Amino acid sequence: MQAQRQKLMLDSISRLIRRGALSNALNLLIKLRPVDIAQVLGQLPQNDSESLFKALVRSELPKAAEAVSELETDKAVELLATLGREEVSRLLQELPSDDATLLVSGMPEELRDDLLDAMKVEHSTVVNELLGFEDETAGRIMTPDYFALDEDVTVSEAITALQRRSEEFEMAFYLYVVDSRNHLLGVVSLRQLLLNQPSTPLRKIMISDVIKVATDTDQEEVARIVATYNLLAVPVVDQENKLVGIITVDDIIDVMREEATEDIYALAGVEADDRALGSSINSVMRRLPWLMLSLLAALVVVAIVQFYVVTIEQAVWLAILIPVVATMGSTAATQTMTVVVRGIGLGEVSWETGKRVITKEALVGLINGVVVGLVVAGVVSLWTSARLGGVLGLTMLLSLFVAGIRGTLVPVLLKRFRLDPALTSSFFVVTITDAVTFFFYFGMATFLLKHFRL
Amino acid sequence: MQAQRQKLMLDSISRLIRRGALSNALNLLIKLRPVDIAQVLGQLPQNDSESLFKALVRSELPKAAEAVSELETDKAVELLATLGREEVSRLLQELPSDDATLLVSGMPEELRDDLLDAMKVEHSTVVNELLGFEDETAGRIMTPDYFALDEDVTVSEAITALQRRSEEFEMAFYLYVVDSRNHLLGVVSLRQLLLNQPSTPLRKIMISDVIKVATDTDQEEVARIVATYNLLAVPVVDQENKLVGIITVDDIIDVMREEATEDIYALAGVEADDRALGSSINSVMRRLPWLMLSLLAALVVVAIVQFYVVTIEQAVWLAILIPVVATMGSTAATQTMTVVVRGIGLGEVSWETGKRVITKEALVGLINGVVVGLVVAGVVSLWTSARLGGVLGLTMLLSLFVAGIRGTLVPVLLKRFRLDPALTSSFFVVTITDAVTFFFYFGMATFLLKHFRL
Repeated sequence: MQAQRQKLMLDSISRLIRRGALSNALNLLIKLRPVDIAQVLGQLPQNDSESLFKALVRSELPKAAEAVSELETDKAVELLATLGREEVSRLLQELPSDDATLLVSGMPEELRDDLLDAMKVEHSTVVNELLGFEDETAGRIMTPDYFALDEDVTVSEAITALQRRSEEFEMAFYLYVVDSRNHLLGVVSLRQLLLNQPSTPLRKIMISDVIKVATDTDQEEVARIVATYNLLAVPVVDQENKLVGIITVDDIIDVMREEATEDIYALAGVEADDRALGSSINSVMRRLPWLMLSLLAALVVVAIVQFYVVTIEQAVWLAILIPVVATMGSTAATQTMTVVVRGIGLGEVSWETGKRVITKEALVGLINGVVVGLVVAGVVSLWTSARLGGVLGLTMLLSLFVAGIRGTLVPVLLKRFRLDPALTSSFFVVTITDAVTFFFYFGMATFLLKHFRL
Repeated sequence: MQAQRQKLMLDSISRLIRRGALSNALNLLIKLRPVDIAQVLGQLPQNDSESLFKALVRSELPKAAEAVSELETDKAVELLATLGREEVSRLLQELPSDDATLLVSGMPEELRDDLLDAMKVEHSTVVNELLGFEDETAGRIMTPDYFALDEDVTVSEAITALQRRSEEFEMAFYLYVVDSRNHLLGVVSLRQLLLNQPSTPLRKIMISDVIKVATDTDQEEVARIVATYNLLAVPVVDQENKLVGIITVDDIIDVMREEATEDIYALAGVEADDRALGSSINSVMRRLPWLMLSLLAALVVVAIVQFYVVTIEQAVWLAILIPVVATMGSTAATQTMTVVVRGIGLGEVSWETGKRVITKEALVGLINGVVVGLVVAGVVSLWTSARLGGVLGLTMLLSLFVAGIRGTLVPVLLKRFRLDPALTSSFFVVTITDAVTFFFYFGMATFLLKHFRL
């Protein structure tokens, strides 16, 4: 729906709910696509969305299930919590197993087993299997509902098979070719089926150099492969090359959005489930730890500055200029770190190319340091004294150079040791850069003050 | 290719080039997929990639063309610049028109017309038309090579038509249904063709509530629609609802990566074409303006601090604590701004929901301000004096509250006036927050100093 139509719909529905005409609101809602239902539920105040959702579940379970699978996981779990155990189980059974798994994994531990017990065995077994794979891997996000046939099957037999089982597969554009023990041999696109003679065996038209991923491949890597090779779906195989599932491009798009958000957030010290339209208390709880870390970093710097209190009393301008020292180093470090973290995220920067990146970023830091240093030296010389300008200019040079190196080294090292390169980078890089810079700044000033006035 | 195999391939190829065995290197390269060729070309040193690329163009033009379309636009334009005009034109003619347009639009103005002149009329006309649409709109990124048939065509006729013209379409999963004047009436998936009786007319099986975009729809909005509705392609219509092109999901994925990078970069003051593996001089040129802006902001703060030099001389601890004042406000503002900018990017925050977000972020700022303020007051009281702790604590409260409001208001306003909300947010938000905070901090201290020692 277009933004405007969506707003009108949202307004009508909330007006109806406010007037107590829940069933009229439900009638409007049911006509929408599941995605649009999800958007309405996501934007209504909590009470309204809960009562509307309950009504929807009772009148159209399949549609309710589809809508739930389109919601943010947090919101979906919140809505499901308002239903009874039996109802939730029936709803989960309506969903493809990858979507059901995502929802179950978002629920509190104690509820999970309860729910799985209440589901039909064939459903709960699949969900349980998927839950066995680690979070954020191909195994966890794949669906085991793929379409695979034997290599000797002909094109016309394949079309018949597809027609017979078409309900089972949400998005089948590829047909996978396997041997009798389910080893992945090749792939055929639906289009190939249309373009070839009915009697051709799949063996003859399949592409055997299949691009595939393993169950333990990181979801970020899966996204990169799908993006690089322009795929609509990628098959997932186990250690013996047996086909166990597929991941479709629509799920990959969700992964990409999620990973991009994570990167953006981590660089700014925000956690992934902190949303603009989320609850205030959630945002407070998520942000306070980062603010405290930031405060700690600032207090480290204060301790360094305090160490030079005698120097400051001799030349108060040293203190007045602190904002320049504090700002420029972090700005430069943030720039470098952002480019490097994004490079890692896009798969361009690795341990191997790391050396080249460090050399480059050190050079960039040096050049920028010289330019900024000269400008600062000039401005400060005119404003106060040439010596102070010199001290601050040299500080800028060092600060930007260090920022370039640290800004590269820290995320590359974190990546190497399999920590999230974005997660803690900003804190360490900024604190270290600041500490080094302030020591140098006041140290040099103190040294000079022994011989001259600044 | 997997990262390891790719590294081996890159090593072998560069060893062969270094030994002067260019044709052996070419033989290795030609066996790869176009995407992988692009990756090799992108990672070789400039000289090597240029000579290898020239050899590739001369021996396998179509493959060279495909590889070029998979490269970053900057790198592609750089490689094309080493070829003659005629060669570039022939290469561009091998490409789908959306890819050709992207490349031509990346070239220097004066070269463009030259190239279009050298291309065959039917190609250059299409490219020229696409270039007529504004940058970053659906019209600019669409391909006019869609597959559309009349509503009275039957399923079997459609299959025949598809078989006859299958070479023309890179990725056709949907068949669009149009009337005699090319107005978009509906859409049929290839799967529907397989599942229905051969004699059924398309009219009967098409979905007529088609999700579509206009030529002037922003590419970010197109990406949002494709992601929300799990589409493989979206049709583009003109003002009269005539079908003019389609955008496929693989191009959408590129748009999403590009837009996410832009958001991440803009928040950190880095420009979009600044790459970890790019040239140093490019990074210097891109980052210096932002560093200068940041310097300007710092100097504004210095001017404010300097205004209170007498106050500082009376209580030097006020200056020593500056790093806390400078850090905490920007940290909080960055957190808020990041959540809001990402929310705008994901389509969750708009002018309409803006009010709710501001209220929420003001509240978050207030609560965090109280907590941080109390902690700071406590720490500083223990470290120096209770009065100074009080001043700094109150400053924190104000600073975090202002940061919450500005951090929301500025990006939402920029978005409202159709400026990139990420672009200049960080500079203004941080400078304004800093200025307000420092005035308050020193103002209150100066006032108190008239009556007490701090």
